[in-house]
Amino acid sequence: MRCRKCSEKAVINMRQHKLALCKEHYLEWVPKQVEHTIHRYKMFTHQDHLLVAVSGGKDSLSLWDILWRLGYQADGLYIGLGIDAGINYSNESHRLAQAYAQEHGLTLHVEDIKAKYGETISELTMRTHRGREKPCSVCGLSKRHIMNRIAREGGYTVLLTGHNLDDEAAVLFGNTLTWVGSYLLRQGPVLEADRPGLVRKVKPLCRMYEREMAAYALLRGINYIYAECPYAAGSTSIYYKELLNKLEADRPGAKLSFYLTFLQAKDAGLFSPSADVRAEYLHSCPSCGQPTSAPGLCAFCRMFAQNQDLLDDQKVD
Amino acid sequence: MRCRKCSEKAVINMRQHKLALCKEHYLEWVPKQVEHTIHRYKMFTHQDHLLVAVSGGKDSLSLWDILWRLGYQADGLYIGLGIDAGINYSNESHRLAQAYAQEHGLTLHVEDIKAKYGETISELTMRTHRGREKPCSVCGLSKRHIMNRIAREGGYTVLLTGHNLDDEAAVLFGNTLTWVGSYLLRQGPVLEADRPGLVRKVKPLCRMYEREMAAYALLRGINYIYAECPYAAGSTSIYYKELLNKLEADRPGAKLSFYLTFLQAKDAGLFSPSADVRAEYLHSCPSCGQPTSAPGLCAFCRMFAQNQDLLDDQKVD
Repeated sequence: MRCRKCSEKAVINMRQHKLALCKEHYLEWVPKQVEHTIHRYKMFTHQDHLLVAVSGGKDSLSLWDILWRLGYQADGLYIGLGIDAGINYSNESHRLAQAYAQEHGLTLHVEDIKAKYGETISELTMRTHRGREKPCSVCGLSKRHIMNRIAREGGYTVLLTGHNLDDEAAVLFGNTLTWVGSYLLRQGPVLEADRPGLVRKVKPLCRMYEREMAAYALLRGINYIYAECPYAAGSTSIYYKELLNKLEADRPGAKLSFYLTFLQAKDAGLFSPSADVRAEYLHSCPSCGQPTSAPGLCAFCRMFAQNQDLLDDQKVD
Repeated sequence: MRCRKCSEKAVINMRQHKLALCKEHYLEWVPKQVEHTIHRYKMFTHQDHLLVAVSGGKDSLSLWDILWRLGYQADGLYIGLGIDAGINYSNESHRLAQAYAQEHGLTLHVEDIKAKYGETISELTMRTHRGREKPCSVCGLSKRHIMNRIAREGGYTVLLTGHNLDDEAAVLFGNTLTWVGSYLLRQGPVLEADRPGLVRKVKPLCRMYEREMAAYALLRGINYIYAECPYAAGSTSIYYKELLNKLEADRPGAKLSFYLTFLQAKDAGLFSPSADVRAEYLHSCPSCGQPTSAPGLCAFCRMFAQNQDLLDDQKVD
């Protein structure tokens, strides 16, 4: 297989694009694709002050790398979740994120959830009902809250996450299996800051296959954490990804087309705006000021308030 | 495994309903389920004059059987497609449909496509571009046209097809992969006669798993054609069914929930009515009077007009 651009030996063949490329042209192609996505969905400009959520994995570190190469002003945010699981997961991913930042002279904010809120994700998973049912739910809730808080505190105009096409297609597949209007209406490459207290969120890798991002990180020589989060094993999203991978293997491009035709149909007005039933009920959490659909405290503050109650009870006893 | 109702030995265990039943109670349960669907979607009443499209397969013969047991006035329509494929497919299915009708004293209309229009489906498949690409497309087009014509000519108020849940979920899955608004908006258990020349169409088996219908036909002792249509091998719909069967095996009930939550969301207004872009452009075919979105003749009449042109050309030569 030869590179489409220079006829050197190709290092990757992307059946979904009918495109094979050598290392040099692949490393040139990926940032161009990402820039196209940034422009296509009007995500941000060179004047924006960007905050990238960096987990130490291939997607977020590659995203940061691409933004740096494209000349955007992007700081990183690493959230220490306190997950060890016998593989030193959080410490190792922290070390890799820090190493990338130092090597490229970039700013990395570090927020340790245990230091700030008193509990690690592993502890929350054990203590809370929500966590015992679905560890990823507790973790996602915490990360969304903290990312938004740090972005507001730091005056960042846009918050970026490394969600790739496989992530987005799996979420879309899950939303399609249940047809919840508010989820379908809110899924997309850009989540507008349409409520007080919210920072605009974007996903510049949403059109990139997971396999493409892994190839980019490897070929670029980015050191990232290979292990998946231990809590993700057996999760619904991994199951949906496997199912979509089967579809993709049989019909190259099906995953991309599933996601892109959805976005096009949504933009063209497929869904009734009134189907977003959650929209009317959002208000500001009296504790943190972030918008929430729950009465009283938001789910994040409630989760930690429960712990405070427990601690207070122990003191009284 | 014991029957939920009488503790006799169960003949079927439906994980999706957490229900096991003996033969007697299963044969009682299926018609009740179908009657529930008929009422739930206001399909028809005992005053309606029904025409059931009968292919000789398990679904349509079981549907006819259930309607007969529930006391509805339902005649059958068998369309002779002229498919032999070395297994005498059409002749054998005709014989089985006829046998069922005779045994139960029911009226079966028989329409032979070769006798009426000059070509079998096999011949159309060879001659037309559409057919060479997708035989099922030529066949579906022909069946829809003929069913509607016979229903109109016979003064039937409702046309019934034996589409089961697996059929409907596969179509929905295909429509979801491409997000075509007009297909999503028009999919459902009832297709209203909202254009002049159209007869109301309903699918009373839309909530019944294919496996449930096979079990019904076997346990009821209905002789049906076991072979799938030879043209269906390798079709997209079979591929989607396999994918959904994998999902169903891992998550019993997923297929039913996918379809029912879609219907609920649609009823609750998930989609904008304006997304049905085809709606405005329908007009009556000048040849047959059925509604069509094509300019001039409808696709069915055009398909046979081409043949007439060919025959005329041959005469001139």
